[in-house]
Amino acid sequence: MKIIIVGASGTMGTHLTKAFEKEHEVITAASKDCDVTVDITSTRSIENMYKDVGGFDALVSTAGPTFVGPWKKLTDAEFRRGVEGKMMGQINLVLIGQEYINPKGSFTLISGALTHEPQLNFANASAANGAVEGFVRAAAIELDHGIRINAVSPTVIENSPQYFAYFPGDIPVTMHQLEYAFRKSVFGANTGQVIKPR
Amino acid sequence: MKIIIVGASGTMGTHLTKAFEKEHEVITAASKDCDVTVDITSTRSIENMYKDVGGFDALVSTAGPTFVGPWKKLTDAEFRRGVEGKMMGQINLVLIGQEYINPKGSFTLISGALTHEPQLNFANASAANGAVEGFVRAAAIELDHGIRINAVSPTVIENSPQYFAYFPGDIPVTMHQLEYAFRKSVFGANTGQVIKPR
Repeated sequence: MKIIIVGASGTMGTHLTKAFEKEHEVITAASKDCDVTVDITSTRSIENMYKDVGGFDALVSTAGPTFVGPWKKLTDAEFRRGVEGKMMGQINLVLIGQEYINPKGSFTLISGALTHEPQLNFANASAANGAVEGFVRAAAIELDHGIRINAVSPTVIENSPQYFAYFPGDIPVTMHQLEYAFRKSVFGANTGQVIKPR
Repeated sequence: MKIIIVGASGTMGTHLTKAFEKEHEVITAASKDCDVTVDITSTRSIENMYKDVGGFDALVSTAGPTFVGPWKKLTDAEFRRGVEGKMMGQINLVLIGQEYINPKGSFTLISGALTHEPQLNFANASAANGAVEGFVRAAAIELDHGIRINAVSPTVIENSPQYFAYFPGDIPVTMHQLEYAFRKSVFGANTGQVIKPR
């Protein structure tokens, strides 16, 4: 299977790349230091990535920039970080990518527990996640040629201890659990699902 | 109670205005034909509305422009209708309005069943709704001075028969049910809730 991993230089993307490249052809993509350079806030950059890569069987996105910080600083301008990044960046990966993906291919986007379990400082991520999840359910009934789409929704992950203090009461998700949630989407048959690592 | 109704010239807003003005001071707001003119896609216009109105006890929004149409026409450009309208328009009503609302006041935004029950042609609304709902839950734990926030989430409403065919299997929500969902948010004590008319 030919798999594009967007956000491949990040914490999740690095782990997934190592895991999947043992058995599959993985194309890594990120803003730097990867097989393909992509800026997901630019539809032109996304289009260029797909043209470079050619046909593929799965796109995995772990790219979720959002604004993290005090509510008092949360204005329209800061909110755009998550709108353009985690939300529209990922949505455009699908709207554009559907023209390039192979039949029966799959898209897997990154969401997060903040959709339903808010934490202080993360309202931008809660909104972006909610948008991604609503979109995934809607796209699942629209995509043609057996193309599937799901979101993976973890809480804080074990390899990001700098965020532990922001998520009181959440047992961090292990990288093993996270990887298997992505496996369920990429190698399973489900669509329109929000998959929680467990 | 002094209540601002944004989207007051629309189907829902007209009904809510008639219902609430019997017992409360209602300020109607919309792009035209209301007490106050507001374009919710402009932060400056929102700011001007609040300056004109002064202190208030509740803001009710029924303003939810989104792109409705075939998936094949759904590009980044069309998607922006819901992003700027139903999503950021309503989110900015809160981010800006929190500086003007009276202590123990409330914000009530409009979402919709499409968040969790997608229908063909409405992926933009599914995403915008999901964002609004995620935001409402997050804002509820951030807002100071006892200020509350909820979303009302109806399926198709009885006074919009032009949409019935798009919602197979959904019994239209009556205007009475819709009104009482808004009453629960505005006159109740709950916060961070997505209220389904029933």
